Amino acid sequence: MGRAAYRKRKYHKPGTAPGTYDIAETREAGHGSIEVIDYSADGFERRAGLEGLESAQSLPNRWVQIAGPPSLDVLEAARQRFGINPLALEDVVNQGQRPKFNDYDPGIFLTLSLPLRNSENAFQQLSLYVLDGLLITFLEQEDGLFSPLEERLRRTGGRLRQREIYFLMHAVMDLAIDMLFPLIDETAVRLEELETAIMSHPKEALLLETHAFRSRLLVMRKVAWATREVVNELRRHLEELSAGDLRPYLEDAYDHIVSAIDMVETQRDIATNLIEVYLSVMSNRMNDVIKLLTLVTTLFIPATFVVGVYGMNFDRTAGPLSMPELGWPLGYVGVMAGIFASMVAMFAYFRHRRWL
Amino acid sequence: MGRAAYRKRKYHKPGTAPGTYDIAETREAGHGSIEVIDYSADGFERRAGLEGLESAQSLPNRWVQIAGPPSLDVLEAARQRFGINPLALEDVVNQGQRPKFNDYDPGIFLTLSLPLRNSENAFQQLSLYVLDGLLITFLEQEDGLFSPLEERLRRTGGRLRQREIYFLMHAVMDLAIDMLFPLIDETAVRLEELETAIMSHPKEALLLETHAFRSRLLVMRKVAWATREVVNELRRHLEELSAGDLRPYLEDAYDHIVSAIDMVETQRDIATNLIEVYLSVMSNRMNDVIKLLTLVTTLFIPATFVVGVYGMNFDRTAGPLSMPELGWPLGYVGVMAGIFASMVAMFAYFRHRRWL
Amino acid sequence: MGRAAYRKRKYHKPGTAPGTYDIAETREAGHGSIEVIDYSADGFERRAGLEGLESAQSLPNRWVQIAGPPSLDVLEAARQRFGINPLALEDVVNQGQRPKFNDYDPGIFLTLSLPLRNSENAFQQLSLYVLDGLLITFLEQEDGLFSPLEERLRRTGGRLRQREIYFLMHAVMDLAIDMLFPLIDETAVRLEELETAIMSHPKEALLLETHAFRSRLLVMRKVAWATREVVNELRRHLEELSAGDLRPYLEDAYDHIVSAIDMVETQRDIATNLIEVYLSVMSNRMNDVIKLLTLVTTLFIPATFVVGVYGMNFDRTAGPLSMPELGWPLGYVGVMAGIFASMVAMFAYFRHRRWL
Amino acid sequence: MGRAAYRKRKYHKPGTAPGTYDIAETREAGHGSIEVIDYSADGFERRAGLEGLESAQSLPNRWVQIAGPPSLDVLEAARQRFGINPLALEDVVNQGQRPKFNDYDPGIFLTLSLPLRNSENAFQQLSLYVLDGLLITFLEQEDGLFSPLEERLRRTGGRLRQREIYFLMHAVMDLAIDMLFPLIDETAVRLEELETAIMSHPKEALLLETHAFRSRLLVMRKVAWATREVVNELRRHLEELSAGDLRPYLEDAYDHIVSAIDMVETQRDIATNLIEVYLSVMSNRMNDVIKLLTLVTTLFIPATFVVGVYGMNFDRTAGPLSMPELGWPLGYVGVMAGIFASMVAMFAYFRHRRWL
Amino acid sequence: MGRAAYRKRKYHKPGTAPGTYDIAETREAGHGSIEVIDYSADGFERRAGLEGLESAQSLPNRWVQIAGPPSLDVLEAARQRFGINPLALEDVVNQGQRPKFNDYDPGIFLTLSLPLRNSENAFQQLSLYVLDGLLITFLEQEDGLFSPLEERLRRTGGRLRQREIYFLMHAVMDLAIDMLFPLIDETAVRLEELETAIMSHPKEALLLETHAFRSRLLVMRKVAWATREVVNELRRHLEELSAGDLRPYLEDAYDHIVSAIDMVETQRDIATNLIEVYLSVMSNRMNDVIKLLTLVTTLFIPATFVVGVYGMNFDRTAGPLSMPELGWPLGYVGVMAGIFASMVAMFAYFRHRRWL
Repeated sequence: MGRAAYRKRKYHKPGTAPGTYDIAETREAGHGSIEVIDYSADGFERRAGLEGLESAQSLPNRWVQIAGPPSLDVLEAARQRFGINPLALEDVVNQGQRPKFNDYDPGIFLTLSLPLRNSENAFQQLSLYVLDGLLITFLEQEDGLFSPLEERLRRTGGRLRQREIYFLMHAVMDLAIDMLFPLIDETAVRLEELETAIMSHPKEALLLETHAFRSRLLVMRKVAWATREVVNELRRHLEELSAGDLRPYLEDAYDHIVSAIDMVETQRDIATNLIEVYLSVMSNRMNDVIKLLTLVTTLFIPATFVVGVYGMNFDRTAGPLSMPELGWPLGYVGVMAGIFASMVAMFAYFRHRRWL
Repeated sequence: MGRAAYRKRKYHKPGTAPGTYDIAETREAGHGSIEVIDYSADGFERRAGLEGLESAQSLPNRWVQIAGPPSLDVLEAARQRFGINPLALEDVVNQGQRPKFNDYDPGIFLTLSLPLRNSENAFQQLSLYVLDGLLITFLEQEDGLFSPLEERLRRTGGRLRQREIYFLMHAVMDLAIDMLFPLIDETAVRLEELETAIMSHPKEALLLETHAFRSRLLVMRKVAWATREVVNELRRHLEELSAGDLRPYLEDAYDHIVSAIDMVETQRDIATNLIEVYLSVMSNRMNDVIKLLTLVTTLFIPATFVVGVYGMNFDRTAGPLSMPELGWPLGYVGVMAGIFASMVAMFAYFRHRRWL
Repeated sequence: MGRAAYRKRKYHKPGTAPGTYDIAETREAGHGSIEVIDYSADGFERRAGLEGLESAQSLPNRWVQIAGPPSLDVLEAARQRFGINPLALEDVVNQGQRPKFNDYDPGIFLTLSLPLRNSENAFQQLSLYVLDGLLITFLEQEDGLFSPLEERLRRTGGRLRQREIYFLMHAVMDLAIDMLFPLIDETAVRLEELETAIMSHPKEALLLETHAFRSRLLVMRKVAWATREVVNELRRHLEELSAGDLRPYLEDAYDHIVSAIDMVETQRDIATNLIEVYLSVMSNRMNDVIKLLTLVTTLFIPATFVVGVYGMNFDRTAGPLSMPELGWPLGYVGVMAGIFASMVAMFAYFRHRRWL
Repeated sequence: MGRAAYRKRKYHKPGTAPGTYDIAETREAGHGSIEVIDYSADGFERRAGLEGLESAQSLPNRWVQIAGPPSLDVLEAARQRFGINPLALEDVVNQGQRPKFNDYDPGIFLTLSLPLRNSENAFQQLSLYVLDGLLITFLEQEDGLFSPLEERLRRTGGRLRQREIYFLMHAVMDLAIDMLFPLIDETAVRLEELETAIMSHPKEALLLETHAFRSRLLVMRKVAWATREVVNELRRHLEELSAGDLRPYLEDAYDHIVSAIDMVETQRDIATNLIEVYLSVMSNRMNDVIKLLTLVTTLFIPATFVVGVYGMNFDRTAGPLSMPELGWPLGYVGVMAGIFASMVAMFAYFRHRRWL
Repeated sequence: MGRAAYRKRKYHKPGTAPGTYDIAETREAGHGSIEVIDYSADGFERRAGLEGLESAQSLPNRWVQIAGPPSLDVLEAARQRFGINPLALEDVVNQGQRPKFNDYDPGIFLTLSLPLRNSENAFQQLSLYVLDGLLITFLEQEDGLFSPLEERLRRTGGRLRQREIYFLMHAVMDLAIDMLFPLIDETAVRLEELETAIMSHPKEALLLETHAFRSRLLVMRKVAWATREVVNELRRHLEELSAGDLRPYLEDAYDHIVSAIDMVETQRDIATNLIEVYLSVMSNRMNDVIKLLTLVTTLFIPATFVVGVYGMNFDRTAGPLSMPELGWPLGYVGVMAGIFASMVAMFAYFRHRRWL
């Protein structure tokens, strides 16, 4: 998502029936990949493509991974075979949703936001549809994100494989939450660099970058808060279900997301503080500059006036009051000494008032 | 509504009985249009005008559309024939209400705010009165807003036509919510342009426009929050009713309005950030200007003083201490060299303190 | 109340027994007027003065209006005849209370704040004591405020007259709430004028007025929030009573006060925004002034230095390096051309850096 | 407390057992006074000192007043004779606690903060321990604060004397709350003076005083909020007890403390506003100064350059282009007229741009 | 933790199974110390090292202290012997967790943050695992922190030794909370010094230090709030347990942490206020400087222009209008008097407008 995506969220035309997922309007539709994994404590089967999707479920648990924009066929198959609510499919097609939880009895539908790898501040949407024995994940981009999970499923005797599908759902969600931490960490490192740089050489570019960081953290904060709400709703929902021993895992996920929120907010405070520090430092520097200006002006402008006086061309022969000083043997020395003395006095006054 | 409308909301004279709808005071009264649609899964009938309003209801569901300021006859007919509470009619006449939910058992009354098409920041009021089998909509302006809904109703076999009247109410409300998104999108595009413009050429006009945007977003935010409250109340209310399968649709509407709030608040943060960036950039630029001022002053004012000294007209014949330098063969060159050297030193000092 | 009154709220000496209403200390005591109205669907009787207060109640509902500071006799009569709690009477005597709700079983006691007519930002206190069949109103000032209500009561067949006393209480409260709207409207109009004025001719007086407005809105906001709380408490309380059909009227009053809060807060945001805009505009104007200062200084100070150089009186006969330029035929023209060229270059540089 | 006290709150060494009240460390221990009052509707007895504390309770209600730092004997006596929880005694010894409510079944323990008389911003701690028939008050300083209450108790037939001990507790608490109002009032008066002074003659000292006031209000606000919480807890707690007719008195105390909070927050807003106004006024004044600087510079620096030109000493005999103007009969008048004209033009331009 | 630690919190790789505690990745693993204390009212035994951990529990209560980074053996032993949830162990290994409460039925797991002694703003993590009769504490660093508690346990007849293990848990937690107070106190003392210093000699270094303090207080506030939440959860949890007489102790701990929060927030407000005061003082000082600049410029620049005029070299013989003033006997005196008079007038004007 990122700031751009938050703005450019797709929306259907006002007046359209809710639950409309008009693939035709979606430019990149139909290029998604499909992967179907059936598993139980004893078995593991993996199929690909639309045929996989339509194949009979051979083992108690099935995980359908749909990555990239799905074709209309796939969506229709999902709707008819697994009874997914069209409102959920509408959210899958209109990417850029904020993290949310929907309970389409009997299934539940989660939307999450994942930081995109290799991209500075963009998020992709991950949607999960869960029923007893079935998990469907819709991922915006194909990028092998789930390979560590597949690996854990493939291992005979792995804890994940012996449990109900809700544990797999938790694993996927946990992955989404954990992906926030490298992003936060990277931001933290850069913020620290910015702080060092601003302290030594404040420059406008650093200020603008800090501002940009604060905007990034704003988006991360929104994602994290919405995710926290999702985990919360899930906790409440699963208490009604039988999946009781999932509870500590959800608590753990909740702790993680709260921790992420905490870090993001701390960083926002640091960034705000940094901006204030920058402005203070710049203002102090400006004050120094203006003091110099004032010092120079105050020392030399009156002196320039005085020497200007004795540069006047009044006719000394016109009368005894017409610039007689010009003829005094010590006139020049006197004037220069007077100027010098007043400069020293001025300087002392400045020191006294702590302006230097 | 818009900022203007928020201020200019009509109100009755203090001391008047509540539920008074004094049409006489309403300038534009009596120019509204009336359209009555009776429908069921099998039938669709459409009548216009006051006669339509008074005709017997031929099919299970009736939708009465009143657009523009209604005449007293229409209001009286609505009150007597459908038993609308006078407090509700008072709100219809006194336009500019904030979105709200009222439960006048047995009917419910919703007030919503719709962005006006072709107008920058104005909203119009949409009021809905719902009873079993009856929906009355009061729209501030006649502008064919509901034609996509009529189209969907006209289609035989359309989902909307087969359901209870509450689904039509949801469709109207959904339309009102969805109309916020193009407005938000437009704001987002303009904000992005402003950001680019401010970064390259900061100008006062851009700042003022950003301030104006922030005010607009303030109004949008208020409308969105109040609408969210309405949807919430509706959710709570409908749980008591039999319209149980409406729930996911209301959840969907709720998600949309929360999403709108989210975007509006993000944009407000961006606008605030932009204002801060503008002020920082301007302040930096001003600092540069003041540094230049100080540099020029510091380099040339002392120098001007020195040349002023040798422009004095002291009589060199008055004595040996009366400006003897003027007669030295290298006096001129020495003075100029001294000035030049001190300028270079000053310049170096500036560089050293990073003022350039 | 107003800002002043908020400060000057009377309080009893610490250590005094609660429920003490020491009239002796109240300067203006004893000048209030008393009016007693007994009414039912069929009858209407009106008496004045202390005798009216002590007369037997002839009809099911009695409304006692006490306006202006009451005398000790009146308070004692109220306490003994109607059993008002001394704590309530203490609040009546110590004017300047914030709006609040007290449940002195069996009676309830409301304190409200009414904008004073013909006064810019002052509020007066209105207290209501309600029992079955009895309403006592204490108004700080006598100003015929209730005449529209009396008019409605006097009318045979009027809705208000046929209902229980709680409807009269609602009518009084509704009057208090509705009196906020003209005040809000007036503020809105003045704020708009201020905005226009600040945009064209920013002046310190306008800024100070906007600040003053924000303070006013602060007080209005406090009154409105406290009133909202009162209405809320009343809603909760009356659900326990039998006065069930009062509910939509209270909802309506609640909607009104929420609407007032909404407008006041919008105006506060507008005022804050206006102050920020003023400061930005002033700052921009100052920047322009400083740029001009810098331009003039940068163009002319170096030039003045140069001409100062050639105003020095070094003796050209002292040697070949002693100001030989002064004797060159094109010396003058060359210097002037050099100065002019460097001024043009400086100017071009300014344009280039967008400082003009 | 005050700002200082908030910081200097005593705390025991980490790792010490909770409930330790190590008198030895308390410098001023053992100088407190003890006063014991036994009372009922019919009797009133007063004893002093440790013997009074240990005497048998002769009447149904006993009020033990301990003022000033208590000695270890007193604390031990209190613990053994009345069963006070050591945790409560620890709070008595470690002065500077924030207002709080503790329920040490069967007794309850309240800590309150009282403004110190004759001191600008300091608070003293008042602790109350209440059991059926027993009230112990610990006051930080001996200053006859409770004499009005004793007076009320001494009066035969006084309401306070005929009621349970909880009414005395309420009276003490009410006293503590009511003592906030003179403090608030005093602040309000000084704030108003500050406002007037800042409007006419803004000075740095006034700004610093306003800042100091805001800090004071911060402390008062914290005390008031914590006290409100105490009253709230007490309300909740006493509903479980039999002291039912105390309820309206607690409601009254609650209203008072809410009112105090309201005033303090209004004053904080006023102080903040005042600081902003001061800064705006100073900034406007500075702008005027800078405009004057720019005006003078702009008018005279170019003119000085021009007269500098004609002060150059180019040899008029060197050629026809070497300062021929100096020999023109109207040269001097022309130059002066040109300078004057350009000054007028400059001035007109300034007026036009509203810089004057 | 401190600001640094908040950022550098360790996290496992996204996609890893939750509950993974990969010691291999932890650099400093395996250097921790182990100490096991078995105690009851009558006995006290102390063992060290892994053998101690694996020894049979001889007395009803056991306290296992693990300090420094634990080795994999220790963790495995803890998991197998005491059944600690792997999720808890993961939090022990990944240091830098925020304070939190986890209920791993039957045990509970607390994470707290302790200020590091001899370090300015760093915190270490303290984790507690509690079961009936068992307390395991994991401390990040070995530093004899718990010696006062051991001392209290060792004392025969000590209260702590006679109670259940939950009282020991409380004692450890109380220690963690109490360690905040010296830190807060130290900050308070330094803040007061900063205030004094800023009031007399505002310097950039002081401003930056105040900013740094505000950041520190930010971290302390986060720790304190999270700790408060932990105590709260614990209160709620222990009400379900039988440890009923622990309640007042937990209330006491709760009061302490709320008190800490209160102080930290007060200090943050003071720090913010201090920054504002600094900026105001600096701005006032700058205004004084600029006023001086303007005064000097305004007094001397016009005067310099005038003397420049009479320094012009127009040929007095060219005509009667060519600088005749130069030949007037009182010309020089007149010019000087005029300049002096205008300077005095200017100065008076400045005084009048209160610019000096």
